[in-house]
This record gives sequence, C-alpha cells and structure tokens, in this order.
Amino acid sequence: MPQERKIKLGLILHGVGRTWDDWRHPDRDVRASTSLSFYRTQAQLAERGRFDFLFVADSLSINEKSSPHYLYRFEPLTILSALAAVTEHIGLVGTLSVSYTEPFNVARQFASLDHISGGRAGWNVVTSWLSDTAANFGKAAHPAHHERYRIAAEHLSVVQGLWDSWEDDALVGDKQGGVFVDAAKLHRLDHVGPYFQVRGPLNIGRSPQGQPVIFQAGASEDGKDFAARHAEVVFCGPQNLEEAQTYYRDLKARAERLGRPDGAPFILPGAAPIVGRTDEEAEAYYQELSELTSIDTGLGFLARAFNDHDFRQYDLDGPFPDVARIGQDSNQSASQRILERVRAGNLTVRQIARELSTPRGDFVGSPEKVADALQRWFENEGADGFVIFEALPGQLERFVDLVVPVLQQRGLLRVEYEHDTFRENLGLPFLSNRYVAENKHAG
Amino acid sequence: MPQERKIKLGLILHGVGRTWDDWRHPDRDVRASTSLSFYRTQAQLAERGRFDFLFVADSLSINEKSSPHYLYRFEPLTILSALAAVTEHIGLVGTLSVSYTEPFNVARQFASLDHISGGRAGWNVVTSWLSDTAANFGKAAHPAHHERYRIAAEHLSVVQGLWDSWEDDALVGDKQGGVFVDAAKLHRLDHVGPYFQVRGPLNIGRSPQGQPVIFQAGASEDGKDFAARHAEVVFCGPQNLEEAQTYYRDLKARAERLGRPDGAPFILPGAAPIVGRTDEEAEAYYQELSELTSIDTGLGFLARAFNDHDFRQYDLDGPFPDVARIGQDSNQSASQRILERVRAGNLTVRQIARELSTPRGDFVGSPEKVADALQRWFENEGADGFVIFEALPGQLERFVDLVVPVLQQRGLLRVEYEHDTFRENLGLPFLSNRYVAENKHAG
Repeated sequence: MPQERKIKLGLILHGVGRTWDDWRHPDRDVRASTSLSFYRTQAQLAERGRFDFLFVADSLSINEKSSPHYLYRFEPLTILSALAAVTEHIGLVGTLSVSYTEPFNVARQFASLDHISGGRAGWNVVTSWLSDTAANFGKAAHPAHHERYRIAAEHLSVVQGLWDSWEDDALVGDKQGGVFVDAAKLHRLDHVGPYFQVRGPLNIGRSPQGQPVIFQAGASEDGKDFAARHAEVVFCGPQNLEEAQTYYRDLKARAERLGRPDGAPFILPGAAPIVGRTDEEAEAYYQELSELTSIDTGLGFLARAFNDHDFRQYDLDGPFPDVARIGQDSNQSASQRILERVRAGNLTVRQIARELSTPRGDFVGSPEKVADALQRWFENEGADGFVIFEALPGQLERFVDLVVPVLQQRGLLRVEYEHDTFRENLGLPFLSNRYVAENKHAG
Repeated sequence: MPQERKIKLGLILHGVGRTWDDWRHPDRDVRASTSLSFYRTQAQLAERGRFDFLFVADSLSINEKSSPHYLYRFEPLTILSALAAVTEHIGLVGTLSVSYTEPFNVARQFASLDHISGGRAGWNVVTSWLSDTAANFGKAAHPAHHERYRIAAEHLSVVQGLWDSWEDDALVGDKQGGVFVDAAKLHRLDHVGPYFQVRGPLNIGRSPQGQPVIFQAGASEDGKDFAARHAEVVFCGPQNLEEAQTYYRDLKARAERLGRPDGAPFILPGAAPIVGRTDEEAEAYYQELSELTSIDTGLGFLARAFNDHDFRQYDLDGPFPDVARIGQDSNQSASQRILERVRAGNLTVRQIARELSTPRGDFVGSPEKVADALQRWFENEGADGFVIFEALPGQLERFVDLVVPVLQQRGLLRVEYEHDTFRENLGLPFLSNRYVAENKHAG
C-alpha cells in the first residue's frame, strides 16, 4: 500500500521578521536575528509541530537601505549546526551561494552538518541576486543571470561528486589489522570544468543521508529550468492559489520532460498564516500587523527589486510604469514576480507597494479556515506543502497548537516522525554512491 | 592588586586520535571524528575542568596516505557551532585557512559563532601547508611560503575590519520611531589591497567579544613573525622544556620589539599528559600506547613532513640523512621542528621515527608529577599554559579529575569561570571598535 500523500512543512527562521516593519511589533525582540535562544525556541516549536525542516535564508551584501532581516543575522551553516545539537528530528536547510564559495568548502560544511545532525542537512542552492555582492568578494562584476546558472550547475555537480568520494563502507576501522580506511573505496573526483577544477577526495566521509537534500527557489526561466533539473524541493512565493497552480504545473511539466521521477520535485510555496481562535481574532491580528508598516516601506521594496529605481516620481495612484528596461541587472525573480502580480491585479504603484509591505496571503482566519486553505492548495496542484513564515510573534505557536492538530486529524500531516533522516522523512529515495552503482553495473 | 597569573588550558578535539595509530586503542570509537556525542562529552569534560577553550585543527587536502585524524573529520566551524549550543563558558577556537577562503565568509562565520556562543569564538589563522591543497580549489599552485604570510596578514586585517563594520550600538531598534539601525554607525570597509578587495559592511553586527580571539601557530621564521605581530594566543609543539623556552623567549622578544603589550602573546605548547594514580600506572598507560604503533607509522610521518620522501632507502640505525634540499615546498614548520630535534638529540632515522609516532613528552606520571612538570614549564618561561591532547581514551577524564584539582590547590588554575566572554576569561583586553576610537580621537 503506497503511503498516503502528506503535506510537507518547513519553517523559515527569519529572526526579526518577514517584512520591513514587523520587527516593530511590541513583542518582537529586536535582536532576535542573532539570538540563539529565539532560534532554539522556534526550532523546538516546529519540531513539536512535526515540521519537516527549518529553513535559513541568506544574502551576501547589505547597505543602509537593506531590510532589517537582511541587515543583521546569523550565517546559515553556523546557526543550523547549533540547532542540530538541540533538536532531534527536524531537517536543517541552509542557503549558500554558488557564486562566492568554493565547492570543496561547501561540500564539507554540509557533510559536516549532516554528520552532526545524524542525517538532517539540506542545501538551498542560490546564485546570489544582489548585483553589489561582487564588491564584497573582490570581483569586478556579478556574473550575468544566465551564466550564474551555468556556474550553479557545475558547482552543484562538484559538491555532489565530493559527497560521494567516500563509499559508504570506506571507513573500515580494523584495529587488529591496522587498516583505518579501505583506500580502494576512497575516490578522487578529478573534476575539470569551465568554472571549477577540484581533485578531491573530501576529507569527511559520506554522510548519514548519503547526499544532503537539494533545495532551490527558481522563479526566472533559468531558475525554473535549474530547479526542474536539480532540485528535490522547490521553495516559491506565489501570491494566491492561481499563481501557485501556474508555477506548480509549469515546474512539474519541465521536470517530467527531463525524465525526473513521478512527482519530483516537491513544490512548497511560502505561507504566512495568521491564526486566531476565530476569524475575527485573526483579522484583528492582521490589522495589528498592517498598522506597523508605512508606504515608504513598500516603495523601498519596489526600489530594491528594480535596481534602486525611485518610484516616487510616478503618480502613486496611477497605473504602474513601464520599468522593464531598468530591471536588467537586478533581482530578476523578484521583479518578475512583482510585474506579474501588477498585471494580474491591474494594480497601482500604491496598491502593489502596500501588498509588498504587508502581504496578507490566503491563510488568515480560524484554525479550520487556515487548514481549509492549506488543504485546498495541497489538493489542487498548488503545493506539496508549505514553508511557513511567522507573520507575528506568537503565530508559530498558534499554528502548531491550533492548525497542526486539525491537519493531523484530517490525515494530512504526520503525527510522529517516521524515520531517522530528513531525506527519508520527506519520502525521497536514498541516493546510492555513484562508485558503488558503477561497480554493480560493471559486475 | 594585579590578578595572579594562571595557567591557560585548551583542549584539542581530535576525534580518533593524536598519532597515526592511537585510533587502534580498544576503547576508541573509530567514528569518533564525526561523532557529536563524543565531541560533546569531551567538551563538557573540559568545561568541568575549567579549561579556557576547545581547539579544532584542520587541513584541506587528503590522500590515501593521510593520517586517520586528517582523513575523516568534522569541519571546524560547524562542529564548534554545535558545541556552542551545549556548553556555557568554554572558548571555541577553530582553524580556518586564509589561502582558500573569502575574508567576507570567514568574518561572518566567526562573528556568527561569537553571537551563537555569547562571546566565545576564536580563530586559529593558518595558511595551509599541504602543497596539494591547491588542487582542491582550482589553483595551479599553492602560494610560496613567504607569500602565504603576506596573504594571511591582509586577509586577517580585512576580517578584523569587517568585525568592526558595525559600531557596538549601531542596532538601535527604536520601534516607535521606526529606526532599526543607525546608518551613521554602519561602516563600509572599502578595502583595496594586493590580494583582496572587500567593500563591506558585514551583514552581522559586532559580536559579544567585539573581536574574536586570534590564535596562530608559527614555527617558521615567517610564521613566528606573523604570530609575534598578530596573535593573541600562540600554539606550539616543543618536545621538551628547553625547546619550549627557546621558542617562548624568541617569540616574546619578537613581540616586544614590535611594541606589543607586556606579555603578549600567550604561548601555549601542546601537551599530551598520561596520568595514573601512581607513576607506575601512568607508565603502563604509556606502554599501552606505544604498543599500538609501528615503525611504518613513524616513517610515514617523516615522509609526510618531507614532501613524501622515502626514508626506507637509508640505514634506519645510521645518522639522519641530509634532506634539507627536499623540504622546500612541504610543511616547513614540521620539517624544521624535526631537523632541530634530530640535531639536538643526535638521533637516527629509527629513533626520530619512533619519537614521532609515539611522543612521550614531559607529562607522564602521577597527578602530582604531571602537575609539577606543567608548573615547571609555566614558571620557567616555557609556557603561559597548555593545549592538552588526550593521549589515550579516558586520559582527559583522568586529567580533569586528578590533575586539575592539584593545580587549583596550588592557585595555578581557576576554580570558576570569572567572566562571560572567552576574551575576558583569558585576561585579554576588550578591543574598542576602530570607528569609535577614531571619533574619540577626533573629538
């Protein structure tokens, strides 16, 4: 009997907040983004709610205009390693850029996290979209968008190759015979490509998961192709079910054309539930949130997505300007999503600014209402699960205490963790070591 | 009244062992090098013994001839972050190479570790001495020894600059006024040097220690100059008190000539105590250890230090050959140390090989005898403290339970941690943020 399909759940750990202004909530610790105790509490809450994973986003460049949750925060691999020591079951997914890292260091840190956590590491592969990131890494210019994905594919293939450089049973540990390692099961990668040359082997053995889980968040054409080809889990940001379905069907079709196994990759939209005991209570929470924000914030958000373009020069209540020409070198996935949303809703500058600064989403209401909405997305080709943002302090706890039990009763969420590793809990296949597979093939 | 001078103590976390063969001890877990529970137990033992810090060594290249403790182990920053979550007082010092890392990433990971641990991070700055490391990082050749230290100095200055890029009170968090950060207290570094160009600011605020503690382990001339100029703590590997004194006096003199404050840097030789309740019991433990090793191991150790040179071609019981010409591009500090030891003891190939494979050291005996030896080094310009290696399973516990109380009774070791941060517990000065210092100077 095939296992029933369950909603996959992740939690974004975003410290001071998700939007530009929610750090201003009276209950928010303004130092949350570097507070181990805050992160630990959130992680343990998510584990109590039987979430599949924690997710730590990242970026590599700030300036005085950056959003509070970008400006000041933990580095992903370090905080995830700390959380590995104080959690038991939940996956630990970190964002790391391929544009400014060495594959050898990336492979090692994720393999090390996988060993520390007993098989719970995941890598969210990003190419870094902020054009001024190059200046922090001694580069004249950030690579162009298309090239970044070619770099990403090669970087990922090297990392995955290094993860296999020890066969699963290469560490022999024969004390009597004095054989620590079986040298025949230790493989050099000897990769030589246009962007990377890496010999190997990695100086840490194959990790409990065999291969940590690969996440991606492709929104552009290149990004979606990359995700369809390489990702096991995709994180996306649709504004409503219709957008989610369009993205979901598009990506699954791309993956199918590439011969990916049935249903791969899992697609998880972001969701920021606002849960009250009643719809009215939830509505009051949403008002509380929206009152924290100003129009400036929304305009700042627009500017950031369009290469610091100043939208005050337009009539805020007039039609959205034609800004295609200025979006060239900036965050293509964000700007594209905004333009699509503007077109779909025929929005003015003010309307899109407000939406951007206080996203409402589809998940505001009583526990049953929120569960209904999640189920609707899940059962109608909108989602295989969700990456949950805590919209307001206290909302994660409300979600875990009020919504999770409803979903569990409906048979849509696990009641207990079933397996030891993140990969197994997600229902993803174990990936055999490539050298073992080769030998089997030859033998 | 000035605080009495105390012995500083660190613990090397080396997983399966210190020598090539001690993983073969019956009580050693052959997977210790990737066992969180082993590392946690050792860390908590060291904290019970009021050690100043844990130390994680590193290297970036292996082959089938590498020593077991090099082959397969945790990456330093990840395991130290995990240990930060399960310890409270002890410093967390990680080795990271300047040759194959980006200063921005290094600054961030150590700042993040410092936040996670509440001010307990330290960076052991190394230049990577294995010449084949370059092949894992797409480089044609490893930089020459002298150039590596020029790179190191610039890399370190960039990292320390980034650590200051937020003034201590830059995070305002004024919820009413909507001011998250005081932009005037956020500084770009705008570093442009021969090896690195880094703009900044760092995307994490100044950490609890202000600046994580800088470790170094210089043995060559370049290395000692670097340590004298930049290190706050120096880790070294003398074979006996005389060698320790020579190194100690040399390095302190270099530092004094450079105008470093009185007594800087702290100098901590490695020590592998073998403690028994009696001298006889300790001697039996040493025999147990030496029986694990073979002459092959010692010859392998020699080969590794001298560019894979095969010493079997010589008469093992004859005088040590003239190998100065082959040590060019290999581990200069290790080979130099070996040559000095050979000259000092007029040793044969077999004798130095045996010493290398089963170092005996000065610290084998009853608790009082070991305490006497440590005190002798400490009070006679041999050491400001020690970095302890666990020679055999169980020895760390014996050291903590038997030797630490003796040293505490003699007033040579702390009884309780005095401060919150590693830097303060070491008695090192708080380093003011450079931008604040500048302003004060101008004002």
